[in-house]
Amino acid sequence: MRRLKCLVAYDGTDYSGFQVQPDQVTVQGEIEAAIKRITGETVQIVGSGRTDAGVHARGQVFHFDTASKVPLEKWAFILNNQLPEAIVIRSVEQVEPTFHARFDVKQKEYRYCIDNGPVPDVFFHRYADHIRHPLDLERMRRAARYLVGEHDFTSFCSAKTFVEDKVRTIYRLEVERDGQMIWVICRGNGFLYNMVRIIVGTLVEVGQNKRDPDEIPEILAACDREKAGKTAPAKGLTMWEVAY
Amino acid sequence: MRRLKCLVAYDGTDYSGFQVQPDQVTVQGEIEAAIKRITGETVQIVGSGRTDAGVHARGQVFHFDTASKVPLEKWAFILNNQLPEAIVIRSVEQVEPTFHARFDVKQKEYRYCIDNGPVPDVFFHRYADHIRHPLDLERMRRAARYLVGEHDFTSFCSAKTFVEDKVRTIYRLEVERDGQMIWVICRGNGFLYNMVRIIVGTLVEVGQNKRDPDEIPEILAACDREKAGKTAPAKGLTMWEVAY
Repeated sequence: MRRLKCLVAYDGTDYSGFQVQPDQVTVQGEIEAAIKRITGETVQIVGSGRTDAGVHARGQVFHFDTASKVPLEKWAFILNNQLPEAIVIRSVEQVEPTFHARFDVKQKEYRYCIDNGPVPDVFFHRYADHIRHPLDLERMRRAARYLVGEHDFTSFCSAKTFVEDKVRTIYRLEVERDGQMIWVICRGNGFLYNMVRIIVGTLVEVGQNKRDPDEIPEILAACDREKAGKTAPAKGLTMWEVAY
Repeated sequence: MRRLKCLVAYDGTDYSGFQVQPDQVTVQGEIEAAIKRITGETVQIVGSGRTDAGVHARGQVFHFDTASKVPLEKWAFILNNQLPEAIVIRSVEQVEPTFHARFDVKQKEYRYCIDNGPVPDVFFHRYADHIRHPLDLERMRRAARYLVGEHDFTSFCSAKTFVEDKVRTIYRLEVERDGQMIWVICRGNGFLYNMVRIIVGTLVEVGQNKRDPDEIPEILAACDREKAGKTAPAKGLTMWEVAY
């Protein structure tokens, strides 16, 4: 047996998220079925974390164990031949049997794409949330700065969560413009359920002058999901990178 | 009544082409249904030309006549609210009642996107054709130069066509790299059925060293579809611009 670490990108639009769920088409389910067709083995891949329905990935990571003799350098190509085009294995490497795709995560980066053009760019219709009126990026950046660092992110976490410890550290939270697209880049040591989407939803309200950037410290201190902004739509979110 | 000229972009992946066909979901059908919901009028829009199933547009143009009193500056927004996200009206302007979206075309530009990375970029899986082995761009460019100018393009036209005059002028045929994407930019006074896709398919074979760039004059002279390369897949093709 050897343990393989795989880097996978996917267009999450047509999947019910990463994680296997009964009677749903999921990214994990597609990958496990592809492995079964290649090796005959029934494996359970372990992802770095879930992504919700409609969320994409550029650099999701998973591991699995296999007894297959497929040469390491052929794995990505053979898997991609068995996968739908919306799921692409970017690389496969052999790792120590103690490597764990979820437990060993050091940092994660998500990027959220807002199409802020007066008319949406149709080639981003699956990958960006369109907001027609121009956002005030300077206000968004001022609000973002309050979120960097170690905080209790209870206010920025879906109330439907069972995680007890809601303290996380954000290393980087930037708002950048690229043509008519606005990218919110968020890097941290881990993220709570819906955390990036609630952060983006709140920054958007700041950028729309519906909230003051200087409200953020109060929102954090309240530890109350009701105080933060709406959850931004899934389709703008991409799991960008996982660092070990 | 007034005549409106509309610029429309679409992701053609899930449509059976632009033109209305019985029992098929088409871009034209979606737009006509949207107009009907807005004005109550049953209109037939006139496009600059068809696009095949799976082909996209950034700058398709159509016109239609309406008695509706919807203000000109509201049309794009109202239409977009009635259209699926894969179809975006970019602009609407009033034109002379003699303007004709098909007959008045002076130039058309198509762009074809080839994903030439060792591993495909998943965010282009609907908009680019993936070719894994590196293409030789210099060879492709040398071949392309022979196609610029006025020629009988019978060899580069689907045999399933009824058009008699197959002489067309290509003003520009360029092969450009942008990261792992290769763009073939093709501008001319008009295009025959599948012409851009056959040109791209032939250039790809040249780039793969399966053909010599200097074969092109013979292929043109033969006036025989069998002499040219394969028809490149629809999904990499985008109708980029129509000039009047």
